[in-house]
Amino acid sequence: MMEEIRLIEVKEDILADNKGLADDLRATLRKHKTFLLNLMSSPGAGKTTLILATIAVLRHELRLAVIEADIDSMVDAEKVAATGVKAVQLRTGGFCHLDAAMVSKGLAALDLDQLDLVIIENVGNLVCPAEFDTGSIRNAMILSVPEGDDKPLKYPLMFSVCDVLMVNKIDYLPFSDFDLAAMQKRVFKLNPRIKIFEVSSKTGVGINAWTNWLKQEIKTFIGS
Amino acid sequence: MMEEIRLIEVKEDILADNKGLADDLRATLRKHKTFLLNLMSSPGAGKTTLILATIAVLRHELRLAVIEADIDSMVDAEKVAATGVKAVQLRTGGFCHLDAAMVSKGLAALDLDQLDLVIIENVGNLVCPAEFDTGSIRNAMILSVPEGDDKPLKYPLMFSVCDVLMVNKIDYLPFSDFDLAAMQKRVFKLNPRIKIFEVSSKTGVGINAWTNWLKQEIKTFIGS
Repeated sequence: MMEEIRLIEVKEDILADNKGLADDLRATLRKHKTFLLNLMSSPGAGKTTLILATIAVLRHELRLAVIEADIDSMVDAEKVAATGVKAVQLRTGGFCHLDAAMVSKGLAALDLDQLDLVIIENVGNLVCPAEFDTGSIRNAMILSVPEGDDKPLKYPLMFSVCDVLMVNKIDYLPFSDFDLAAMQKRVFKLNPRIKIFEVSSKTGVGINAWTNWLKQEIKTFIGS
Repeated sequence: MMEEIRLIEVKEDILADNKGLADDLRATLRKHKTFLLNLMSSPGAGKTTLILATIAVLRHELRLAVIEADIDSMVDAEKVAATGVKAVQLRTGGFCHLDAAMVSKGLAALDLDQLDLVIIENVGNLVCPAEFDTGSIRNAMILSVPEGDDKPLKYPLMFSVCDVLMVNKIDYLPFSDFDLAAMQKRVFKLNPRIKIFEVSSKTGVGINAWTNWLKQEIKTFIGS
């Protein structure tokens, strides 16, 4: 006689538990009027450099801190700390993403009443970070031109969960077969409300447009 | 001015939280007098076949169930259920190991008062499952001859956390350069108290020695 098999979806349970914790975290952020931005991308797309460019523009207007996630190094946190901005390093020890519990440990190391904006530099990975709500107010991602215009086809969830996309290393465009229009069409099909900025942390192109958008989002959040 | 970086070891926290939950689970198992065996190995080493061979010997003496972990299929659970033994399938959806929280969801689907032995077939992986205490009473692993005698050097933690090692597919030994004595020496250096059985689920060699050991462990546990 065949026994009936009981099927338990472990992943759905884990994601549901994480979502509950992320919602609690957002309530805490709202209480302290601290905006949390979750920045995601592939390794090498330019997260740290974009964060440094963002700090350079916003540090005199806003009180900032950065939570860095790294599997096993502190180099990114050291670059942030060298600017005089507070950095918390989460060493994930092999984990490929951050979840709300890990982010809440990072936030607990900061004085939220003294901060307007905390930027999370998530683990460099286009898959798992898209699945785990970190408790952030907005999700941002970087796609760099050298990665190719097909990434929205390969990693649709990441493009779907983000509020804003920075197309970075835009200075490479003339030397590349990256089709900006085709990429945008693919992204808007997945996520019609996403905001797209073409930027280059190297030349500074687009950085003000991006930081102006971010300031407006923070203003709306703090006023709400 | 360089800001001081606060370093948070996310992984250690996660493993500590998991250990607490695993200890709670063991207390529950003790109360119900249900022995939980956690079986680990590489993919294809023979976990399911060994479980089926173990069921064939023990099913008339003990009340058994199996918790199967699989990233995205139910084939192993179906093989177990076909023998008439109760199977719970945990679909991990990409996660590479089981933790105590996932195992407790699996155990909650079973009536522990009606069971003497529950076998967990962990995800096929020699790395992550070794790090996460599942709440089991004993940890078992399989190393199959075709995998090679160097595995204790490459995956020392797995060999360190197990109470018993089954060297499976021992019928391949005459056709292989697998050095049984060298492998045993490497394993005992990592874990002097480990019990080693040479088995073949195919020919049946060693299965009675293994199941006799397991019965003795269960008897000691239930009497304790």
